[in-house]
Amino acid sequence: MNKYDLIVVGGGPAGITAGIYSARQGLDTLLISKNFGGQLTKKAVLIHNYPGFKKIAGLDLAKKFEEHLKSLDLDINQDEVVKIQKKNSFFSVFTNQKEFKSKSVILATGAKARRLGVSGEEKFLGKGVGYCVVCDGALFADKKVAIIGGGNTGFEAAQFLSKIAKKIYLLEYSSQVKADQRNQRIIENDSKTEIIINAQLQKIKGDKFVNSIIYKDRKAQKKKELKVDGVFIQAGLETVYPELGDLVDFNKQDQVIFDLKTHKTKTPGLFVAGDVGVGKFKQIIIACGEGATASLSAFNYLKKNESKN
Amino acid sequence: MNKYDLIVVGGGPAGITAGIYSARQGLDTLLISKNFGGQLTKKAVLIHNYPGFKKIAGLDLAKKFEEHLKSLDLDINQDEVVKIQKKNSFFSVFTNQKEFKSKSVILATGAKARRLGVSGEEKFLGKGVGYCVVCDGALFADKKVAIIGGGNTGFEAAQFLSKIAKKIYLLEYSSQVKADQRNQRIIENDSKTEIIINAQLQKIKGDKFVNSIIYKDRKAQKKKELKVDGVFIQAGLETVYPELGDLVDFNKQDQVIFDLKTHKTKTPGLFVAGDVGVGKFKQIIIACGEGATASLSAFNYLKKNESKN
Repeated sequence: MNKYDLIVVGGGPAGITAGIYSARQGLDTLLISKNFGGQLTKKAVLIHNYPGFKKIAGLDLAKKFEEHLKSLDLDINQDEVVKIQKKNSFFSVFTNQKEFKSKSVILATGAKARRLGVSGEEKFLGKGVGYCVVCDGALFADKKVAIIGGGNTGFEAAQFLSKIAKKIYLLEYSSQVKADQRNQRIIENDSKTEIIINAQLQKIKGDKFVNSIIYKDRKAQKKKELKVDGVFIQAGLETVYPELGDLVDFNKQDQVIFDLKTHKTKTPGLFVAGDVGVGKFKQIIIACGEGATASLSAFNYLKKNESKN
Repeated sequence: MNKYDLIVVGGGPAGITAGIYSARQGLDTLLISKNFGGQLTKKAVLIHNYPGFKKIAGLDLAKKFEEHLKSLDLDINQDEVVKIQKKNSFFSVFTNQKEFKSKSVILATGAKARRLGVSGEEKFLGKGVGYCVVCDGALFADKKVAIIGGGNTGFEAAQFLSKIAKKIYLLEYSSQVKADQRNQRIIENDSKTEIIINAQLQKIKGDKFVNSIIYKDRKAQKKKELKVDGVFIQAGLETVYPELGDLVDFNKQDQVIFDLKTHKTKTPGLFVAGDVGVGKFKQIIIACGEGATASLSAFNYLKKNESKN
């Protein structure tokens, strides 16, 4: 079986940048990802802070990233990695279909919207419950929706939905919303959106589709019901990764631990980049920088191992 | 005197990204830099590894960065910072003309081509001796030039100059060039460029302008002379920074030490990004990521201090 120098697992900003760097360095590289662009494709508002583009839609930037990657000399497999192992100094990277082998791996599998685990959340998934307003928002034209989560993604989801929906309830668990001033100001001036603080979602109800939510008013200690046609859960991120066995360690937030200077993990030859890792801030440009760092470290690792043999 | 929330010192990729992020977060921001784009403006070959642009000239990317920055709500002062101090929890940032005050500072002053300190280097600066082929290469049409340094920048300088000059000598001190395979292959196929290893530059000679260089062949232990009209020194980078007193510590490479997770220095409110700092790899996309991280850390610092008062 052909052994790649490097397999990049993930096709978001971190993985794509790692792929670009690795191909440019002449490494025999395979990138495996089900999709390209990662969370970029789910951005509810225009991106204003990726240097070089004053403003650009997430999908458009994702497209540019994907085209950049595909213009270079590397293999790409559009599939999902389910397991990574290391045997006799080689990595085996498994999809459900195949096994691929390599001398090094960059794990850049990112993160996805956190599930709350409340009653009805799973039952009504795709039947009123969603996590991505860009993907599913259009279904709620002139309808009532609830957004769960008063951070930036919640407020950005409200901005997006206020062009579509009739009424938006924005529920925040704590006594204070967490979105930054800029996002708060936009929503303050939006008559369609009503912010409800101290609101703990307890149940999503419906028949075939969602028709209401029950939340506890944590201050009044009372249950309340809101008639809504849809619920978008925007409660932060949780990391995504394949079966890794003992190859890496995790912190309490279930993020993969790596050396901040080199992006090495405890397993020689395995590097991490982007939102799956312990990096403090989760931003497109930061994930890209991490992808480049992981690739350059992988390059050094391969060169050192070559000179040993 | 008006006190800014944040002063960003430097206008390369790191400083510009820090400026973009700070303006977007609503911080009252001043960015001070003599030039915009930093080392981007001196790139001898097209940039292929900034995600989103398949290939782009350094000057063009610098222009895009500058326009992006200037489209946002922040103050910009096109000048050189000569000194930074901290008194009573405020920073004073001095140019030769003025003093500016702020609650926090991001140092992103970058690095520049290293001086070798050989005889004639200073005397013939601008009279045949240069550090930037993009800036000065055109002066050597159909002439003979020496490039000092067999790393990637030396090889990229040779690529650039081979379209202009008649003959190029590429001198490398050690017994092996350090440029990557891709760059070596391009120069191998270039009949104008002659690579000389084990070459220690000792003297740059001339009259009004450079007319030769003396180097020691370290293997043969002999002095040799090459007739050249110009010398481009490409011997790596040295950090650039204003007078900082005790505000920061340096490593042995004269790079500013910071916490890799947050980009904090030992002085509360002072953050570092880009090539002036201890980050392992020096790349555009990595410098941009560091600028974003420093800005987000400065934002957290300011918010925490506000809530104290």
